[in-house]
Amino acid sequence: MQKERVVIIGSGPAGLTAALYTGRAMLNPVVIAGSQLGGQVAITADVDNYPGFPEGVTGPELVQKMAEHAEKFGARIVMDEVTEVDFLHGSPFRVKTYEQEFLADSVIVTIGARARRLGIPGEEENIGTGTSYCGTCDGFFFRGMDITVVGGGDSAIEEAIFLTKFATSVNIVHRRDELRAGKQLQERAFRNPKIRFTWDSALEEIIATDDPTVSPKITAVRIKNLKTGAETTDATRGVFIFIGHDPNSEVFKGQLASNDSGYVLTDELMRTNVEGIFAAGEIQDEVWRQVATSVGQGTSAAMSAIQWLSAREGDLQPLGELSAEEVAATQPQASTN
Amino acid sequence: MQKERVVIIGSGPAGLTAALYTGRAMLNPVVIAGSQLGGQVAITADVDNYPGFPEGVTGPELVQKMAEHAEKFGARIVMDEVTEVDFLHGSPFRVKTYEQEFLADSVIVTIGARARRLGIPGEEENIGTGTSYCGTCDGFFFRGMDITVVGGGDSAIEEAIFLTKFATSVNIVHRRDELRAGKQLQERAFRNPKIRFTWDSALEEIIATDDPTVSPKITAVRIKNLKTGAETTDATRGVFIFIGHDPNSEVFKGQLASNDSGYVLTDELMRTNVEGIFAAGEIQDEVWRQVATSVGQGTSAAMSAIQWLSAREGDLQPLGELSAEEVAATQPQASTN
Repeated sequence: MQKERVVIIGSGPAGLTAALYTGRAMLNPVVIAGSQLGGQVAITADVDNYPGFPEGVTGPELVQKMAEHAEKFGARIVMDEVTEVDFLHGSPFRVKTYEQEFLADSVIVTIGARARRLGIPGEEENIGTGTSYCGTCDGFFFRGMDITVVGGGDSAIEEAIFLTKFATSVNIVHRRDELRAGKQLQERAFRNPKIRFTWDSALEEIIATDDPTVSPKITAVRIKNLKTGAETTDATRGVFIFIGHDPNSEVFKGQLASNDSGYVLTDELMRTNVEGIFAAGEIQDEVWRQVATSVGQGTSAAMSAIQWLSAREGDLQPLGELSAEEVAATQPQASTN
Repeated sequence: MQKERVVIIGSGPAGLTAALYTGRAMLNPVVIAGSQLGGQVAITADVDNYPGFPEGVTGPELVQKMAEHAEKFGARIVMDEVTEVDFLHGSPFRVKTYEQEFLADSVIVTIGARARRLGIPGEEENIGTGTSYCGTCDGFFFRGMDITVVGGGDSAIEEAIFLTKFATSVNIVHRRDELRAGKQLQERAFRNPKIRFTWDSALEEIIATDDPTVSPKITAVRIKNLKTGAETTDATRGVFIFIGHDPNSEVFKGQLASNDSGYVLTDELMRTNVEGIFAAGEIQDEVWRQVATSVGQGTSAAMSAIQWLSAREGDLQPLGELSAEEVAATQPQASTN
């Protein structure tokens, strides 16, 4: 077992930023990257709205730059996934991965969230080339095009209205014959001449071209009326799916306080309910979900962790590989909190 | 008078990010940049901790990139300073500069703060080459060097302790013979073998070399004992000055709610007390003060402004140059809020 000052769980913008900041504070952080370095950004084709890149940057490029930046200041990135944690017995905390176990004086949780998928043919293949889960991020790419929105809640309708700034028309496909969204929002959507509704219906398939000169690649969607069973094909260039997000908080269940949707609760200093555990990025953010906001939160979480560790510097146990006796000895200490 | 959807006051990372986001939302924002495009970052030599730039980036370069990025999406940057605002009569708000007057449906205030200066010879000239007002930002550049800290409050002592991670020694020069900082923090400083104190003393001068091969440039400080009048010269490579910050909020006095130190108050959606006025960056942040956190806040403020405007889209008055009659007509409407 390896003793560390800071273990960062997750390697999206929040995690890599926390790594950069704790690295520059000479804390030599470990980043447990998960199955994919960079998280959701790694599968984003173009990041057009991270300030400082006027020409835009691809998701994988931005991840590479952020990882290199953190590593330059001593961050160690481990391609492994957390399988179990013990946060209940206070610092130092145990963090288990498939391959290793860490004992960490502090932990920064940045393990993100994932947009719910429809699970239909053509969806995953066209992420970044026509399928999107974020209007703020991708709306600009669909100027002058006809697009399709799936969903009927507040955020689906809010995003659909926002997308009319760019799109020529927005077809909202909804499983039921009324919206869950608030009345005022509904009325704004009904009044908007660019928005039409396809009720009682679901997407069956997203159809794309393989012509490499065409961008975005999506050309149509196949829509099924759930009441009549009738199928239609509707020309469209973009499919925006707003049916919710799920935070990746299962592994912390019962240990970190979360809201009803599973988002980890943090205060304004990015502290969780467990002293010494901090969180940043979409694991604790249902509102903003931007690279830029996750970077800001990762900075704050790291600065809070640095200050928390600094105040306890005299009491912290030594770092490095622990012997079997040392591992055993940490256990009673671990329960004193 | 020019009618606008969004006027952004200030052009640091928060302002340029808000411009990028409102620009991408097709709101064609105006940025009133102030006397220097980029604010405090423009006078920062190296920004080592803005994620995505592993080789580092100079302050002026980063400002240039962020400005170009915002302009690419339609932001119009005006090199002028705000002299007067009317936020008290509701939206649309009047914003006056030396050269122009704007009528803005919404305003994002990102006008920043400034670190208090000692006002001694050698101080301004060496900002970025040895003089610093931010340990988190610049500590890493002083690894293995002797440095000087000025101040005796909580943040001065917290920063001095943080700087011992990098520096060989830290000399805290303080005007009095005791610290204002909290007892626990004081004790940590007193116990720290790298920290020494020079009591009842003030810096008189910062001395630097003009040898272009030497970095940082500072070589010594001249210190005066305020009780005895005795002067000494102390070798040092960095001078960190932590005597407080002042938010640039004078122009909003009596219109935007602020705390005792003058920082504009915002809620978690970056809203001020005036509906339609948002704020981001150091004008409302006494805690983090990082490029990365200001970028995050600028994003949030812009997204809130976009949503606020979107909900009122039907009621907003047309844009563009107003005639004298239209200007007159805005005044009664302006007071309805």
